[in-house]
Amino acid sequence: MSTTVQRRQSGSLPPTIAWEGGLDGTLLLLDQTLLPKEVTQRRCVSAEDVWQAIKELCVRGAPAIGVAGAFGLVLGIRHAAAAERAQFDAEVERVAEYLNGSRPTAVNLSWGLKRLRGVLASQPDLSASQAAQRLLDEALEMMREDVETCRKIGEHGAKLIPDGGGVLTHCNAGALATVDYGTALSLMYVAHESGRKFKVFADETRPLLQGARLTAFELAAAGIDVTVLCDGAAASLLRSGQVQLVVVGADRIAANGDVANKIGTYGVALAAKAHGVPFYVAAPRSTFDLSLARGDLIPIEERDAREVQGVFGHAVTDHGQACFNPAFDVTPAELVAGIITEVGVVQPVTTENIRDIFSDGLELG
Amino acid sequence: MSTTVQRRQSGSLPPTIAWEGGLDGTLLLLDQTLLPKEVTQRRCVSAEDVWQAIKELCVRGAPAIGVAGAFGLVLGIRHAAAAERAQFDAEVERVAEYLNGSRPTAVNLSWGLKRLRGVLASQPDLSASQAAQRLLDEALEMMREDVETCRKIGEHGAKLIPDGGGVLTHCNAGALATVDYGTALSLMYVAHESGRKFKVFADETRPLLQGARLTAFELAAAGIDVTVLCDGAAASLLRSGQVQLVVVGADRIAANGDVANKIGTYGVALAAKAHGVPFYVAAPRSTFDLSLARGDLIPIEERDAREVQGVFGHAVTDHGQACFNPAFDVTPAELVAGIITEVGVVQPVTTENIRDIFSDGLELG
Repeated sequence: MSTTVQRRQSGSLPPTIAWEGGLDGTLLLLDQTLLPKEVTQRRCVSAEDVWQAIKELCVRGAPAIGVAGAFGLVLGIRHAAAAERAQFDAEVERVAEYLNGSRPTAVNLSWGLKRLRGVLASQPDLSASQAAQRLLDEALEMMREDVETCRKIGEHGAKLIPDGGGVLTHCNAGALATVDYGTALSLMYVAHESGRKFKVFADETRPLLQGARLTAFELAAAGIDVTVLCDGAAASLLRSGQVQLVVVGADRIAANGDVANKIGTYGVALAAKAHGVPFYVAAPRSTFDLSLARGDLIPIEERDAREVQGVFGHAVTDHGQACFNPAFDVTPAELVAGIITEVGVVQPVTTENIRDIFSDGLELG
Repeated sequence: MSTTVQRRQSGSLPPTIAWEGGLDGTLLLLDQTLLPKEVTQRRCVSAEDVWQAIKELCVRGAPAIGVAGAFGLVLGIRHAAAAERAQFDAEVERVAEYLNGSRPTAVNLSWGLKRLRGVLASQPDLSASQAAQRLLDEALEMMREDVETCRKIGEHGAKLIPDGGGVLTHCNAGALATVDYGTALSLMYVAHESGRKFKVFADETRPLLQGARLTAFELAAAGIDVTVLCDGAAASLLRSGQVQLVVVGADRIAANGDVANKIGTYGVALAAKAHGVPFYVAAPRSTFDLSLARGDLIPIEERDAREVQGVFGHAVTDHGQACFNPAFDVTPAELVAGIITEVGVVQPVTTENIRDIFSDGLELG
């Protein structure tokens, strides 16, 4: 038995994330390091497999990492299903801690792990075996919810897509960064379904080229008109008047609305401001971290210099060349016109308006 | 006999441009499409060879293109050295027109060709054979002058390099973009010679990675501390406070000081402004085009989509993916703190101050 959600976008591709079988099952991740050249699924059967897949960006995108991390926890604790419950709970803590260390910036990972631990804490009477099954059920539920959440983000934001106009996005905040639909790209899918005509511009997004490899790939597969550009050409494009909306995803959003997202986002936001083009962020509530007052408190992952020194194994610089390779940057709230969530658009972006979208008591990371 | 200028920078490399022999000689161009992996010289014996070398960016950088174009004219007209002078002159016009079409943005190319035609026009009594030799002498003189011009740019601008600080540059405006020293990088070479300690940050500069391949290479060879970053990381770097100066080259500067330079420059200028970091341009007077009132009149070369679709032959997107690939952008004068030329620094950048640096009557492109 394979438990996946029905993929609405990029029809011919395997799903971004799928679970095959029961508690003794396997996590299947669409390997995003090889797309679009090779379409392969990576089979994960241990927490270590998932840790590695997240680290290597086989699975990436904040919402997708959140769900993959939850399945990683299930894989990491199922060997303890026959243990005493206290021992099982200790193992859950250990594995959650371990998985949480794979990537520091995307808060959805710790949000997902925290959610599973919360479920466990609320059901102290379950046996370890029952608890393990309960965790798997919750991870499956998170996977289903992610689709619904992303769809709602698209529905709330689709009206922003300019009919007959152009939209610029950076990195990949699409069906490949989530279980389906995506965040920023969900707006485009919903607008496209409703028959709106528009042109998408996708920054290629060095060093790992998620824009060129993934965004262009999934939008083109869905029949949406997409043009790729080098990151350095974005300011020029914005100046040309061809773009009326910039929309990107997010890896973590501070309580005041400062947004950590893929490196290069901040420069795009500055250029959008210079040309009066509204800059929006699309993200589920699980991407907010209200424990951090401002964006400069968000930990920024610095990745291996080799990502900059070469491209797909082809050396560009001398081997030992020093490189500056932060994976993310922070765009201050004042540059963000609005944040599109599954419960509506936060606009203007203020601490108060952000608090309001959590008034239903959703537990925060 | 090989006529080169003594290379002061990147000691072990062949010169960017050299002429071997007399009027029947050969133009040697250091092939910049292969650096730093392979160090080879391309031998050009016809105008077509030079046209191709310019088109393919085997030789690139506005000042280097200007000098290479002049030698290209010599190669293209030498077969007519035995003809009537009128026929020779007509051939000069034809070949100059042809070479000028190789790349549209860098004005130094037409400037160099115009200079040679001016020499010819001033000496109507020379035979075709004498005129051909005179053109070669002038091209050799331009090659020597370029070194002196670049050295002076460095001397005028070196004081801007922050002692103990950081400098950001984009693309390659170095010894590899000129006959020697460079424009923007000349400031660094002069400051380094004088013992100043500083750190250079080089944007890698997609699509052709001249920053990673060439700037890092030549600065490291000269013993200057250099760190490479993806273009998208520049705004983040500027925000970090590690950079006190941005300096870049130029391909054409309009009469009001608007600057066409490698794609990505404009975004860096916007980010520099946002963080109060002065943004300077270093360029010889041959890069100014006073016939154009504003930057939006500068023709911008759009290059092949394949440069964006892949990196060194490795496909990144699907083969037919639409791409936006302008080779240059325009930074408005109001973002430019000053323009460093061989006769001093234009500051503030105004039409009047630009006119003043041509008060010695240098003929303009």
